[in-house]
Amino acid sequence: MATAALSFARQNQGRFLSELKDLLRIPSVSTLPEHKGDVRRAAEFVAAEMSRIGLEQVEVIATGGHPLVYGDWLHAPGKPTVLCYGHYDVQPAEPLDEWHSPPFEPTERNQNLYARGAVDDKGQMYMHLKALESLMNAGEGRLPVNVRLIIEGEEEVGGESIARFVREHPERLQADVALVSDTEMFAPGLPTLCVGLRGMVYTELTAQGAMTDLHSGMYGGAAPNPLIALAQIIARLKDSTGRILIPGFYDRVEAPSRDELAAWDNLPFNEEHYRKTEVGSTVLTGEKDYPVLYRTWARPTLEVHGMPGGFIGAGAKTVIPSKASAKISMRLVPDQRPDEIFKLYSEFVRSLTPAGIQLSIKQWSLADPIVVRTDNQFVRASAEAMRQVFGKDTVFIRSGGSIPVVADFEKALKIPSVMMGFGLPDDNLHAPNEKFHIPNFYAGIESIIRWLQLLG
Amino acid sequence: MATAALSFARQNQGRFLSELKDLLRIPSVSTLPEHKGDVRRAAEFVAAEMSRIGLEQVEVIATGGHPLVYGDWLHAPGKPTVLCYGHYDVQPAEPLDEWHSPPFEPTERNQNLYARGAVDDKGQMYMHLKALESLMNAGEGRLPVNVRLIIEGEEEVGGESIARFVREHPERLQADVALVSDTEMFAPGLPTLCVGLRGMVYTELTAQGAMTDLHSGMYGGAAPNPLIALAQIIARLKDSTGRILIPGFYDRVEAPSRDELAAWDNLPFNEEHYRKTEVGSTVLTGEKDYPVLYRTWARPTLEVHGMPGGFIGAGAKTVIPSKASAKISMRLVPDQRPDEIFKLYSEFVRSLTPAGIQLSIKQWSLADPIVVRTDNQFVRASAEAMRQVFGKDTVFIRSGGSIPVVADFEKALKIPSVMMGFGLPDDNLHAPNEKFHIPNFYAGIESIIRWLQLLG
Repeated sequence: MATAALSFARQNQGRFLSELKDLLRIPSVSTLPEHKGDVRRAAEFVAAEMSRIGLEQVEVIATGGHPLVYGDWLHAPGKPTVLCYGHYDVQPAEPLDEWHSPPFEPTERNQNLYARGAVDDKGQMYMHLKALESLMNAGEGRLPVNVRLIIEGEEEVGGESIARFVREHPERLQADVALVSDTEMFAPGLPTLCVGLRGMVYTELTAQGAMTDLHSGMYGGAAPNPLIALAQIIARLKDSTGRILIPGFYDRVEAPSRDELAAWDNLPFNEEHYRKTEVGSTVLTGEKDYPVLYRTWARPTLEVHGMPGGFIGAGAKTVIPSKASAKISMRLVPDQRPDEIFKLYSEFVRSLTPAGIQLSIKQWSLADPIVVRTDNQFVRASAEAMRQVFGKDTVFIRSGGSIPVVADFEKALKIPSVMMGFGLPDDNLHAPNEKFHIPNFYAGIESIIRWLQLLG
Repeated sequence: MATAALSFARQNQGRFLSELKDLLRIPSVSTLPEHKGDVRRAAEFVAAEMSRIGLEQVEVIATGGHPLVYGDWLHAPGKPTVLCYGHYDVQPAEPLDEWHSPPFEPTERNQNLYARGAVDDKGQMYMHLKALESLMNAGEGRLPVNVRLIIEGEEEVGGESIARFVREHPERLQADVALVSDTEMFAPGLPTLCVGLRGMVYTELTAQGAMTDLHSGMYGGAAPNPLIALAQIIARLKDSTGRILIPGFYDRVEAPSRDELAAWDNLPFNEEHYRKTEVGSTVLTGEKDYPVLYRTWARPTLEVHGMPGGFIGAGAKTVIPSKASAKISMRLVPDQRPDEIFKLYSEFVRSLTPAGIQLSIKQWSLADPIVVRTDNQFVRASAEAMRQVFGKDTVFIRSGGSIPVVADFEKALKIPSVMMGFGLPDDNLHAPNEKFHIPNFYAGIESIIRWLQLLG
């Protein structure tokens, strides 16, 4: 049956890719209200595909935000149950003028498929469906294990609805392990399991000064300037060495184990190559006492993403804006607690707010940091499945990103997650020219087929 | 003839206002490239009106930027020559959703005319034309003095073309005095001459970090963040007391004379009323050792107007932008020199730039600060003309704004300027709901008629 399922997958590669392109054409940008209908269309696309390949109980589940898509196949008694997770929503595509081909018109170049969501996460989520289709076909309608799929549409905006669903309906997601394909391989051809994720607190500060925009000549020197106030606040959140200055911020930060650090040292990583080809800046920044992988995987950080307000057109306008905002997020590491960090941050930010400014603090999203357990058969089978596909030993890494639901699975369902991801470091996640390396799409499908067969 | 010209002006008030509305409908926003054609149309409107009322040598003069409009009438031998200056360009109207009526559809409410440019400066510039039309009509084609008019279209973007024209063609603008109506009355009904203006250095800093936008999870802690870098720079430009920290910045700052300060103390100014009704902030900011009028008229300041870059839509996007900018201007006072201040600022800003950031500094505009001479017949006649119209003694004030050409007139033409302005403090210059108090439009026309007759 292994050969049959793999053969099916290989023979249908062209069709699989073509179907993925159809999904990628739907601009399901979850953070932009004007795309609400597109997000819904993407959910319906996924549900229709689940039904077509033979999954049961398929449902587009309404939530307070974007819908969840559920399907299952539970006819393998005595076999483990795998909960497949992915998301069909994507990040905004802006800035549009930096894309070499339109973000929602998938384009192949050099064995890569370029489109917003190609790798994060439509392409990787779709690998699950295509692995199940292949197994279903080879097994004449039967799978080697029980499966449930839960696909969300709010991962890029904090995943609030799935978090609530997991807490409120754990029985509908009952499983032995979760499969999450929303991470990347450490290097091309190097099979990789992700075992840690940073958490997240995403906020927006809004500073109000005067009641209306004012002429900077007439009022400069008397009226508060919200952009200067925000700059003063931001400058005191993080020092020039990259250290975050919020009191108590580091209190719960735990260092990785010596074994984990030693394993990271053995990864094929060249800092200078990373700086030149991935970041492209004159130097790398951040806490110099920690190596780059440590900084981005296991140290918290704070970033500013945009500062709306005032005049942002071309040219010069002499206005003191009455209002301006700053979108600020923090990435957290175990055992920092998002609620607590938001509180410490809010208190500190308020203490830094200059006279004349009325500050409001919006919380956009929270996510727990997590390090997953690796001492179980699911992780061992995953490493073996990928070794078979790639012909190399699997490495264990962390990711600096956040997948909020992984902590929810651990807390509410008491199950471990296997984060088998097939992105590459240069896939431009959240940036212009996002891509998915097409051979990795196929290798991902084969790895998942082999893994499910090993578990069966 | 005084009575005849004033009568003509009074009888034609409705038509004057209606013509002004036509001019205000042209969105001549000089800083926005997409409005280049509208700026040109406004110039042609002004030129056509000059011809219609009997001025000679009328010309729309091409420049490297927006055109100048010139006209004259030079048939009063032995009488002084007055150079009338104004500008037909306007500030951008954004944010549009804060206007109660469309910015380019002039609307009357409570004796006010609401439109972008109503008072700054189309309405005030138009008073000159209508005063001349009234005198021309009453004098059967003759004026009591010689006049030249030069109306520019780049005042809101630094006035580079008129500055060059004044330097290169002083003979075409030869005059005894300049009349500038682009300032305001200190209080409603209080005739006011402006005798000082702040200068200006308008810049834009652009910070480049990574070569492309990056995922803040993957790269947060290693990649430079241009918005944080700009915040760090801005926070070190001005301290919490409003003092600017650029080394050498205050070296040439001169205090006003004791007489001038004493006169300011006698102006009808209530700081609490100003805070509540004009600024509307919880407190006023700036250097506490200086009273509000001193701070806004005779102390330099530094403001941030907008910070383009990153994600400024609604919601959350986890991006480290590769590039971001900050529009920063400084208002200068005598004897600060814009070139020198730009140099000091640039050096300081470069010294503050964090590692990993490549900074470029654009200079949008420079303007000299100025205090004009008041010991001449032109100023005395102006005070008398306004006393006749308003029935009150004229007060002498400064303005915190900048009218770059006033210093050019003094330097290149060696003539004083009379800044007779009829705006009001709540006219919302450069802000939403800009207006011109309609009775002031008419009183301004009468004041100019009387002034020109006194000079003749």
